[in-house]
Amino acid sequence: MPATHFRIHHRDPHSHARLALLETPHGPVQTPAFIPVGTQASVKSLAPDEVLALGGEIVLCNTYHLYLRPGADLIATFGGLHGFMAWDRPIITDSGGFQVFSLGFGIEHGVGKIAAMFPGESQPKPSPGGRLTRIDEEGVTFISHIDGSRHVLTPEKSVAVQQQLGADVILAFDECTSPLSSYEYTREAMHRTHRWALRSLQAARGSTSPRQGLFGIVQGGEYRDLREESARFIGGLPFEGLAIGGSLGKSKCDMHRVLDWTVPLLPDERPRHLLGIGDPDDFFECIPRGIDLFDCVAPTRLARHGGLYTPDGRLNIRNAAYRLDTRPIQDGCDCFTCQRFTRGYLRHLFVAEELLAYRLATLHNLRFIVRLVEQIRAALRQGTFAAFRYAFLHRYVAARKGA
Amino acid sequence: MPATHFRIHHRDPHSHARLALLETPHGPVQTPAFIPVGTQASVKSLAPDEVLALGGEIVLCNTYHLYLRPGADLIATFGGLHGFMAWDRPIITDSGGFQVFSLGFGIEHGVGKIAAMFPGESQPKPSPGGRLTRIDEEGVTFISHIDGSRHVLTPEKSVAVQQQLGADVILAFDECTSPLSSYEYTREAMHRTHRWALRSLQAARGSTSPRQGLFGIVQGGEYRDLREESARFIGGLPFEGLAIGGSLGKSKCDMHRVLDWTVPLLPDERPRHLLGIGDPDDFFECIPRGIDLFDCVAPTRLARHGGLYTPDGRLNIRNAAYRLDTRPIQDGCDCFTCQRFTRGYLRHLFVAEELLAYRLATLHNLRFIVRLVEQIRAALRQGTFAAFRYAFLHRYVAARKGA
Repeated sequence: MPATHFRIHHRDPHSHARLALLETPHGPVQTPAFIPVGTQASVKSLAPDEVLALGGEIVLCNTYHLYLRPGADLIATFGGLHGFMAWDRPIITDSGGFQVFSLGFGIEHGVGKIAAMFPGESQPKPSPGGRLTRIDEEGVTFISHIDGSRHVLTPEKSVAVQQQLGADVILAFDECTSPLSSYEYTREAMHRTHRWALRSLQAARGSTSPRQGLFGIVQGGEYRDLREESARFIGGLPFEGLAIGGSLGKSKCDMHRVLDWTVPLLPDERPRHLLGIGDPDDFFECIPRGIDLFDCVAPTRLARHGGLYTPDGRLNIRNAAYRLDTRPIQDGCDCFTCQRFTRGYLRHLFVAEELLAYRLATLHNLRFIVRLVEQIRAALRQGTFAAFRYAFLHRYVAARKGA
Repeated sequence: MPATHFRIHHRDPHSHARLALLETPHGPVQTPAFIPVGTQASVKSLAPDEVLALGGEIVLCNTYHLYLRPGADLIATFGGLHGFMAWDRPIITDSGGFQVFSLGFGIEHGVGKIAAMFPGESQPKPSPGGRLTRIDEEGVTFISHIDGSRHVLTPEKSVAVQQQLGADVILAFDECTSPLSSYEYTREAMHRTHRWALRSLQAARGSTSPRQGLFGIVQGGEYRDLREESARFIGGLPFEGLAIGGSLGKSKCDMHRVLDWTVPLLPDERPRHLLGIGDPDDFFECIPRGIDLFDCVAPTRLARHGGLYTPDGRLNIRNAAYRLDTRPIQDGCDCFTCQRFTRGYLRHLFVAEELLAYRLATLHNLRFIVRLVEQIRAALRQGTFAAFRYAFLHRYVAARKGA
């Protein structure tokens, strides 16, 4: 019996967008949904009450980080992640594959899921010790970024760790290739990911407790034939949902092409999760292409650096222009921060390095994104998506270009 | 017309303790009270709602820090501190005198208000550039710890800055001597503080807006004749309250002797504030000696380093002993943190350097202290103070000695 159910209740007649309810052992998630990221069992700076209050219905935690610290055994003794972090709503854990990539190969080459993902922003530095990871058929051997200890993750180990963590949705272990990988290497890695997908399914099949829905991950980089082959293969397996992972090319246009190749080949009646993506404009491009779930550290990470979303683009609250600004971050915003505090006070908190700054900024950015996805759902329901999209992007992107 | 009123409604027949209501332009404060410190217009890591929810009725902000950054002019344009930090309850600002001392002379010599105040804990390091401050009859010239710029604070300037900040209670500008100061220097500084007290009163007298109660500060170090002289002099001036500042000696016993010399000479009907003191055991010693108001950074600072109060003494949550501990910090505690989270989860947040750690620890420590003072008020009202004191200290101090 599946652990999750995905009930589509509305289809957009003009696109692949759909409205649905993803039911999990810890409650429902309205989709399309943005999933706040709580890497180390904490959505950085927020208490669970606050995530819920801003409209978050599900959080994503990172298996790689939690496996290394504090350890899955330890979390299991606290009743799994739900008990450990005091969040009794749905949780999804990733498989560890992406972090092995991003903290190994990715760090070495200074690239993200899209080669030019964070233009102008600081990238993790290459590790001086060369490759942190070694990949073979069995799995991945890697060195902890915390203490240098050596670890092996395999599909079976990843599933076992995720069972200890106890999330409602878990992901199959995959090899996440870089935008710099060749066609040949990307194909080889994809086929390995397919064999690992079968092993992940086999490993999960043995267990009945906790009840968890296993999602597969489509790979294939930025290569059309590989993405199509992977979508057909992974989509043909009995996963409860499908995630799209790996390199999405060198630009957002590349990413959209990957979705155009991939999504139509996935089974229609199962949820689709675009891993690691979630800028404001992405929802307008990817939801019509049939994506149901998004997760991304950008809203929370940007917030901690003072980058705040507004309908007129992103502002950096540390800028001296906001010294005397008595307005909220965004006029009319219903977030905790905008209901109480001015830009001038927030700027002071950032400049003075007060801890409250990071939380207030995070609360605004997450509420901005969650509300945006709520608004997109409403617009799809009411048949006004095209107008809402035009109005939002016209203002958001125009202001950004003018800035 | 005074800005504040102090109404004593109960006197302990066995000590100098009293229960009172300090009424201010922004509402009442039940005394004895502990005042959380929001140095830079933020009680570190907390939103104003949280300070209120844990029972905080008044906060103290530091004039020295706010004068340097973001500046009193700027805060005035936001409607003063109340508007700036979105706290519409009572606020007290200090005069800047203590910070000039602690960031100048204090840093140079690595001492606090009590010479052995933080045994075994890290002390601020002496500045390499020698004395940061120069004191003369006019006031204090000092170098900003932020950008090295040169500033002068005088009694008139301190009052003017505090008027811009707009707190309900402000303090007269004083020179805060160190426990290492000689008798001669302490006397000279005390007489200067007395002359500055007259100038502070004169400066405040001219203004009617905002309505602020000016408190004077008793100095005199650890010398009985000086403390008595200062208590008589400052107590004889038309201040709305009296604060006890400066060096309190080399031990807590010295501090208690200073109170025994000073408090009986102060006018009975006005509030008495012991500046910068607030360990759990201090309330049991100082309230019976007639102290009404306490402020201290210890609960918030310790929290950020993982030091958490319990009835059995302080624990350091970073200790590996708490890895698998599924209990709250304190059984039965009504704080936000203990109602939701385990010691094991808190330890993980500290070890992983998650921002949430500092807030959850701060919420517990402040609630612990505020509740302790609430319990002391209740015990005084019910005539059970002696029993409560014995029970608390027996457990708290005994456990600490055993640790």
